[in-house]
Amino acid sequence: MASPADPLSPTSPFPDRAQRQANRAAKREALLLAAVRMFNERGFHDTSLDEVAASLGVSKPTIYHYLGNKDQVLLECVLIGLDQLREAAAIASARPGRGIDRLRDFLIRYARINMDDFGRCVIRTGDEALSPESATRFRALKREIDSALRDLIVAGIADGSVAPADTRLLAFTLAGALNWPARWFAADGPLSAQQVAEQMVDLLVAGVAPR
Amino acid sequence: MASPADPLSPTSPFPDRAQRQANRAAKREALLLAAVRMFNERGFHDTSLDEVAASLGVSKPTIYHYLGNKDQVLLECVLIGLDQLREAAAIASARPGRGIDRLRDFLIRYARINMDDFGRCVIRTGDEALSPESATRFRALKREIDSALRDLIVAGIADGSVAPADTRLLAFTLAGALNWPARWFAADGPLSAQQVAEQMVDLLVAGVAPR
Repeated sequence: MASPADPLSPTSPFPDRAQRQANRAAKREALLLAAVRMFNERGFHDTSLDEVAASLGVSKPTIYHYLGNKDQVLLECVLIGLDQLREAAAIASARPGRGIDRLRDFLIRYARINMDDFGRCVIRTGDEALSPESATRFRALKREIDSALRDLIVAGIADGSVAPADTRLLAFTLAGALNWPARWFAADGPLSAQQVAEQMVDLLVAGVAPR
Repeated sequence: MASPADPLSPTSPFPDRAQRQANRAAKREALLLAAVRMFNERGFHDTSLDEVAASLGVSKPTIYHYLGNKDQVLLECVLIGLDQLREAAAIASARPGRGIDRLRDFLIRYARINMDDFGRCVIRTGDEALSPESATRFRALKREIDSALRDLIVAGIADGSVAPADTRLLAFTLAGALNWPARWFAADGPLSAQQVAEQMVDLLVAGVAPR
């Protein structure tokens, strides 16, 4: 925001430093969103930065300026998705209640993020699409999410609200089920992302066999 | 097999028609296996048929001769995986027993196939990697598998061995959980593919909450 003492404010056509920063951030965000949507729709390899740029009426050098090359754009997209997942884990873990309640909270958030643009990109991106260094970082961040999920399972088993199980395999089973909507969920389908997330988690919590 | 009346049999260095066919089929199979393993490891886009050919000590024209171009090779690989899944559905559906038993049988076979070369390729291949016509065929075959899975769920709900649920969402939840090992299962890990398959299906059948 411009300071009230600023002689050019509030009608100056010259943006001040804060406005320039906000403007720059908004441009980066718009470019990332256009890129991630095209990656998700066409696949990383079949997306060109020229087309991403064209979809916003700018040129490829604009993308290079704000985001870097195509590999860097992909890395940035998956990092945003992974940040959302880490935040979801932090929120769910900080909740009061039984282990199963925190686990359920996390799983619903996790599924929701996977149906959204950047989470979808995390799921659809194979290690092989990234440079070796970026792939190492990608795997390390995914391990953090997996580790948070396992901690929630362990807490639930400890307080008796989760049935004893091989923690690693249960984490993979739950995550796998909730990764898959990244491939099939359609925003114009019969259920909202929130409904899909809640109902899938309910199915996983209750199991296939009648109770 | 050579006919016993064949004057050249059994010591002729000239293969007869049946031997030539068997030989041809064995070569196709070896080429497909080398290709699918490289696709799974490096990703379709980062695999060249030159390298697939080199891994068997042959040249790229040999692959063109037996399998066609790279897109045709990928299509052939996913068709083999989908055939395995359809066979699994047919075997499980023909079993006697309650719906849950047939469902469990199918899910274990389904998970096993997804941890094997061609099933893994089915999971890892996005529609966008195939030509539009091949993608249409790919989707239709995947719908057949999904439909077989839903039929097993419906039968289980009908005989009371499966808890009433949104059939579509339950099918997606189960399939998603059992698709994911295509990305993480390692043959040299602590559990065999059969153990992973059985334990994951047990977790899905029993659910997260204690019974």
